[in-house]
Amino acid sequence: MPCSPAPDRPTFADVKDAARRLRGHAVRTPLVESARLNEQLGGRLLVKAEMLQRTGAFKFRGAYNRISRIDETARPRGVVAYSSGNHSQGVAAAAALFGIPALIVMPEDAPAAKIAGTRAYGAEIVFYDRARESREELAEGLAAERGATLVRPYDDPYVIAGQGTVGLELAAQAREMDAPLDAVLVPCGGGGLIAGCALALAEESPDTAIYAVEPAAFDDTARSLAAGKRLRVAAGARSFCDALQPPTPGELTFAINIRLLAGGLAVGDDVVARAMAAAFTHFKLVAEPGGAVALAACLSGTFDCRGKTVAVVCSGGNVDADVFRAALAGVE
Amino acid sequence: MPCSPAPDRPTFADVKDAARRLRGHAVRTPLVESARLNEQLGGRLLVKAEMLQRTGAFKFRGAYNRISRIDETARPRGVVAYSSGNHSQGVAAAAALFGIPALIVMPEDAPAAKIAGTRAYGAEIVFYDRARESREELAEGLAAERGATLVRPYDDPYVIAGQGTVGLELAAQAREMDAPLDAVLVPCGGGGLIAGCALALAEESPDTAIYAVEPAAFDDTARSLAAGKRLRVAAGARSFCDALQPPTPGELTFAINIRLLAGGLAVGDDVVARAMAAAFTHFKLVAEPGGAVALAACLSGTFDCRGKTVAVVCSGGNVDADVFRAALAGVE
Repeated sequence: MPCSPAPDRPTFADVKDAARRLRGHAVRTPLVESARLNEQLGGRLLVKAEMLQRTGAFKFRGAYNRISRIDETARPRGVVAYSSGNHSQGVAAAAALFGIPALIVMPEDAPAAKIAGTRAYGAEIVFYDRARESREELAEGLAAERGATLVRPYDDPYVIAGQGTVGLELAAQAREMDAPLDAVLVPCGGGGLIAGCALALAEESPDTAIYAVEPAAFDDTARSLAAGKRLRVAAGARSFCDALQPPTPGELTFAINIRLLAGGLAVGDDVVARAMAAAFTHFKLVAEPGGAVALAACLSGTFDCRGKTVAVVCSGGNVDADVFRAALAGVE
Repeated sequence: MPCSPAPDRPTFADVKDAARRLRGHAVRTPLVESARLNEQLGGRLLVKAEMLQRTGAFKFRGAYNRISRIDETARPRGVVAYSSGNHSQGVAAAAALFGIPALIVMPEDAPAAKIAGTRAYGAEIVFYDRARESREELAEGLAAERGATLVRPYDDPYVIAGQGTVGLELAAQAREMDAPLDAVLVPCGGGGLIAGCALALAEESPDTAIYAVEPAAFDDTARSLAAGKRLRVAAGARSFCDALQPPTPGELTFAINIRLLAGGLAVGDDVVARAMAAAFTHFKLVAEPGGAVALAACLSGTFDCRGKTVAVVCSGGNVDADVFRAALAGVE
């Protein structure tokens, strides 16, 4: 194996260790709020602005932490990753900081902004057909061929621990703002971000209820949490939340999430678009569709914020201009 | 006079005092950068994201500092201000925090987002006709009638000192990032923000050159700095930078700026629109036209960033959706 042995399951200590490694490399993204929006909601809503993270999404955290753990001897052979775009940019940017090559397997229909970003960070890209090819097999084959390290998007203890630094910061910032958190809502695809956040919050903010939020058509984590076992997304599911489309919860991530989450929520694309517009109006932030689902759950009333202090993670802002313009079309 | 005596000219000590008063009320906005954009520019560009300030623009700082200085006995009679929108929202929000009434004189053609914001913070609005009425006279009359305190948008020592906290934070954040600043570029209307920033930077970062940036049609500060005296904007000047249209530099602000600035730069509306799109793409931030002029100066090459570390203040993000969508129209 071209990497140092990983813990089976990440712990709070791994999240703290990741935070030390990321210091000076990842952005401590701000936790923002809007007095006007709070008044409208009848509660206090805090937004963790991960679109301001390096590469425009939280994924840099896990990628950097993972790559920092690769043995010096294995590093020159580089890394391979598969992703629709945010993980690919995170891996590309982190690999560039370590001065090692990155090869990314991306779907042909990935957003142009994400393809351009991945290329700009110096990665090599191999495209695949989402309908006919398995990105995992393709990436595993390429990694084996090169002796490179595969950096998985979520089912990796170091990746989960790296994403968990979002939760660690969130808990500290909420304390600084004198805002004890009743609930934290986190966008969920494979579940790495929320699993890491849950590890951090369980220690740092134990009375906080943690919810996964997914696009309605990709609500596998919500259904899996309810069923107590990993279920799959229906064939042919569609959503414009390109970042949140894994077919089933991760194995490692689900084992954490079933233990630490209060439940899962789902939102339709229409309310996600309205949340993107609200992020523009109230926070002056650019949220991509998948990055806005937790905000959408609060603004649509899917999660009732009245009388509560609630934090949502806005996980990324890598959205094509035409998609963003369409989301703003209904705004005065 | 319904207010405590103000210093004739603000000093660095006044900026430090403003920072103490604003602590816990104003947001310490982040200083962000993009590795990709830095590579394109061949320099290091730091963006002070004041659109993330309370009310979506830096103006809250000066308004809050000014209002905090009104005598307790005069406060109940409230405040009056005139502004196309950002100062009005800053005054309305600060007045609300002090629990006092605010009356704002706004042009009929102010952006809808700014009118809605001012109203949402609980202020009363009186509209005037930009072409036929003097907003200063109207506001002075209303303030006298009510015994209220007039909060001027820039020609007030406490307002200048409040805006100067942007420069104070910027200098500290650049030090934290190990980024000695060769230059700082600041959007300039009446000159309050840049005058305050210059007071702070002259002490905290004395080797930094400070430039005012204006819309090409409203380059009165650039011409005035070159001429050594206050000149006026040509009649009929037009720009979509609604926040940067005072007809001439402020008296107090110009006295500071002529002493401390390296010069003035001007940018056309077309490059400002492209800078708004770049802020979307690279920083995931919503900049309004007037907020993006300093960024535009760097990206267009009007100011050459090659080999330098340059900070720009993005001063606000209160832009109507249709204007923002138009700015994104040229983006892939």
